[in-house]
Amino acid sequence: MHSDQTNRIWIYDTTLRDGAQREGLSLSLEDKLRIARKLDKLGVPFIEGGWPGANPKDVQFFWQLKEEPLSSAEVVAFCSTRRPNTTAAEDPMLQPILAAGTRWVTIFGKSWDLQVIEGLKTSLEENLAMIGDTIEYLRSQGRRVIYDAEHWFDGYKHNRDYALKTLETAIAAGAEWLVFCDTNGGTLPHEISQIVRDVASVIGISAQQSEANSEFKTRNLPLLGIHTHNDSDTAVANALAAVMEGARMVQGTINGYGERCGNANLCSVIPNLQLKLGYDCIQDEQLLHLTAASRSISEVVNLAPDEHAPFVGRSAFAHKGGIHVSAVERNPLTYEHIQPEQVGNERRIVISDQAGLSNILAKARSFGIDLDKQDPACRQLLRRLKELENEGYQFEAAEASFDLLMREALGQRQQMFELKGFQVHCDIVRNANALATVKVAVNGKDILEAAEANGPVSALDAALRKALVNFYPEIAVFHLTDYKVRILDSGAGTSAKTRVLVESSNGHQRWATVGVSSNILEASYQAVVEGIEYGLLLQSSASRTTEVATTQL
Amino acid sequence: MHSDQTNRIWIYDTTLRDGAQREGLSLSLEDKLRIARKLDKLGVPFIEGGWPGANPKDVQFFWQLKEEPLSSAEVVAFCSTRRPNTTAAEDPMLQPILAAGTRWVTIFGKSWDLQVIEGLKTSLEENLAMIGDTIEYLRSQGRRVIYDAEHWFDGYKHNRDYALKTLETAIAAGAEWLVFCDTNGGTLPHEISQIVRDVASVIGISAQQSEANSEFKTRNLPLLGIHTHNDSDTAVANALAAVMEGARMVQGTINGYGERCGNANLCSVIPNLQLKLGYDCIQDEQLLHLTAASRSISEVVNLAPDEHAPFVGRSAFAHKGGIHVSAVERNPLTYEHIQPEQVGNERRIVISDQAGLSNILAKARSFGIDLDKQDPACRQLLRRLKELENEGYQFEAAEASFDLLMREALGQRQQMFELKGFQVHCDIVRNANALATVKVAVNGKDILEAAEANGPVSALDAALRKALVNFYPEIAVFHLTDYKVRILDSGAGTSAKTRVLVESSNGHQRWATVGVSSNILEASYQAVVEGIEYGLLLQSSASRTTEVATTQL
Repeated sequence: MHSDQTNRIWIYDTTLRDGAQREGLSLSLEDKLRIARKLDKLGVPFIEGGWPGANPKDVQFFWQLKEEPLSSAEVVAFCSTRRPNTTAAEDPMLQPILAAGTRWVTIFGKSWDLQVIEGLKTSLEENLAMIGDTIEYLRSQGRRVIYDAEHWFDGYKHNRDYALKTLETAIAAGAEWLVFCDTNGGTLPHEISQIVRDVASVIGISAQQSEANSEFKTRNLPLLGIHTHNDSDTAVANALAAVMEGARMVQGTINGYGERCGNANLCSVIPNLQLKLGYDCIQDEQLLHLTAASRSISEVVNLAPDEHAPFVGRSAFAHKGGIHVSAVERNPLTYEHIQPEQVGNERRIVISDQAGLSNILAKARSFGIDLDKQDPACRQLLRRLKELENEGYQFEAAEASFDLLMREALGQRQQMFELKGFQVHCDIVRNANALATVKVAVNGKDILEAAEANGPVSALDAALRKALVNFYPEIAVFHLTDYKVRILDSGAGTSAKTRVLVESSNGHQRWATVGVSSNILEASYQAVVEGIEYGLLLQSSASRTTEVATTQL
Repeated sequence: MHSDQTNRIWIYDTTLRDGAQREGLSLSLEDKLRIARKLDKLGVPFIEGGWPGANPKDVQFFWQLKEEPLSSAEVVAFCSTRRPNTTAAEDPMLQPILAAGTRWVTIFGKSWDLQVIEGLKTSLEENLAMIGDTIEYLRSQGRRVIYDAEHWFDGYKHNRDYALKTLETAIAAGAEWLVFCDTNGGTLPHEISQIVRDVASVIGISAQQSEANSEFKTRNLPLLGIHTHNDSDTAVANALAAVMEGARMVQGTINGYGERCGNANLCSVIPNLQLKLGYDCIQDEQLLHLTAASRSISEVVNLAPDEHAPFVGRSAFAHKGGIHVSAVERNPLTYEHIQPEQVGNERRIVISDQAGLSNILAKARSFGIDLDKQDPACRQLLRRLKELENEGYQFEAAEASFDLLMREALGQRQQMFELKGFQVHCDIVRNANALATVKVAVNGKDILEAAEANGPVSALDAALRKALVNFYPEIAVFHLTDYKVRILDSGAGTSAKTRVLVESSNGHQRWATVGVSSNILEASYQAVVEGIEYGLLLQSSASRTTEVATTQL
């Protein structure tokens, strides 16, 4: 796959270190290990694991990976240059780096004279010694070194000569990669191009000469890399600009996680480089798993995926307007810049209040239902959809509820049970548990059940499943996997409506349902009840070959 | 402000048309009018209002604005070229456009031969006639015309000669602006540069000649514009690339709303052009309102703001790591590419589980509390913070709860009331209302109250305020303005924890509190109770001059 090394770009993932700086994100040791294995499987060659010594979690992370190594990725330890006025061997900070036992170490150093004087409070000469010393010491201990030039672009603009000296020092000390970091994210693409071009020519690396050796053999000239942040909303373009001037490593994070506005999003960098610019980053088969990797990592870090993310977002290939839908069906290139399947994503036809008949017909087809434009049920469905959307329902993220709605309009929705009563009681100061009672009729027989759980929605779900399990044994494995609440028209105060989205699972499929009410418990109840109904429907139609509104796990 | 016209860039907002194509977004007539007035105030010169005739809402929108005009922005009607094989005057589609009564009309036409043949199913000659005809007709009716060249970049790559012919036709017919649209969002910045440069030279507009006249006087040569989408994650960079080759109009949307992955985000385009590249888009005083405009428009469309958005996001100038915080306090440029105040944003010090003492001290200072590093209360606060974060609490978005926590650690939190009992009951099938009872002690006196409301959280809030209002009359105006629910460790099934964020208001301030429990009602209860306590604290410290954890409304 990577046979033509001239086109090889080394992806360097820093989700576990720089990504974890994102506000609202925190990673356990277990999370870090799960993410590292996902990145390894995706084919990312370098994974920055953290700064061993800075916290105990990072030390353990490297130990664990020594016991159960990754299949092909290099795990990299990250650290600053040694402190001023000591030697690398004597600086206790570097010992945990060696103890981490990685083949590669990334050392970041200061490029910006102002930062040396004001931040480190040391001399410009001492900063050069710190860079040279640290890299030489690590080389003498058998480590290979990536040098991250912090604040590179600000340093270059402020004092080009000094900035270049820091690089020369890193080269002379044996760094194999020089990475230009736009630390505050303020640089624009045209500046990245100019500066990388200038530096590459000064240190004798032209874009043509920068082909690398996949075995990372030591060379006299290092390779160049780029590390960008998204403060100017151009992190991805900045990374591409550097590659086009000869950079051969891109540092970034999955989903663009990172401090402030995030780092360069590898989920955009990789397909742009590989599908549009003809570079090799990962294997084409691995690229098929990009969307899955993005979404599963967002699950590990417990952040809702960005539905509008380029390439991997749920809406990235979604079509809403009626004209667009027919155009896309005729020629996908009109509204799709790549084939969604190349990155493991898929085309979606969106159901919304702008939906015309053609959208509904296309959506119905995707569920295996053949609707006829002339069918009055079809017009009625459209009317009902608009009514419900006016009440606050939204089916874009609740396709199982939409499927039930379609079946109802067509007279194909069977009533599997009838809810006759439902009560919730909760005494908070004395007992945090909630109690739900439910009265349900199946095949003409009334069943009354009660269940207690640590929350009202769980209690509701438990009571209903308890009442139904004798009739539908498959219900025993159903469970709630996600629950989202949105307050609509919050300006309306206490009369505001609540929309609840519930995601259910039977262990190998997931599906989403929606409920709307001014009472959060009633909205939850609607969504939970439809979730159970849809699970039963899936079971009864397990032999169907047509697609249903689920995601395979 | 716009005295030097060479540097003038005309911002063209299409939030109301292209932005509304975003999945999950729908705009009422009232929403559209509110957004238009906000854009007008921000100083956006062109506001695309919609396609009159395509739906009744858009027709009404233009009528309303005729009755109560905007102060300076031009409202623009949007429409396609006439249909094939008719004349512009005879095409009924164009009548509502004229009836909209705008001075400017944007006409979009096909640039891509393939789209003409396959999409329009007409001849290449007829497409040219459609472009020329439509523009000439509108000119004859006294309208000024912006020509949007749809699928420009794909058309240019596929058949450059034909694409150029469509532009020549638009120029000859009297279009004053030619706008290059990257309709499927697949073009990268270097291609935008090359293609815009080539076209500008072919039609005789060099970057130097493209200075425009603020009075939009008719000229022989039109001006160039750019319209980009974010499918390649480079929409903003693409817009900047076109401007640097001479484009003088940028079309985009507030917060980058738009179909699939969105349009070029004007909240990034404007500050990049104005603060970094020296162009004039809006007045500097108007730029100070950019963050407020972004957030209030996200409220109108009822979408949670992107906290990590460049320039205007809540995290765009937030500092988390301990090293960063001290560096930023020494030299803001190290981690801030612009001064947050220039776009109306602010620097924030984030409280998180990576928080060191220096973060906590800085945060306390921002609340007007002077903590001493040596104070044991300070260490204890850090310990308590880490404990609570392990339980799932998050104080990044609940600064009022964090303020209460600090006061508690310092022994400065007064108990204003004591909760002794709290019960919720709800009978869903029979009555959607929820009933809450509360027993609370104030100054040694027990009060028992009950309240009914259309949801359990409202009932809880109502019962508690009813019990307390005799002691604290100011409580009468408090109300809940937002309510967010997040399921933590959703993999844990029914034992998953729920985090609730509640935002409260007293009519002129808002503040946020947090609660965590496996029972959503208990979590809500914690957040509501702290919300009321904090409101009372604000009232009692209304004379304080120090900052508190609120947002002014």
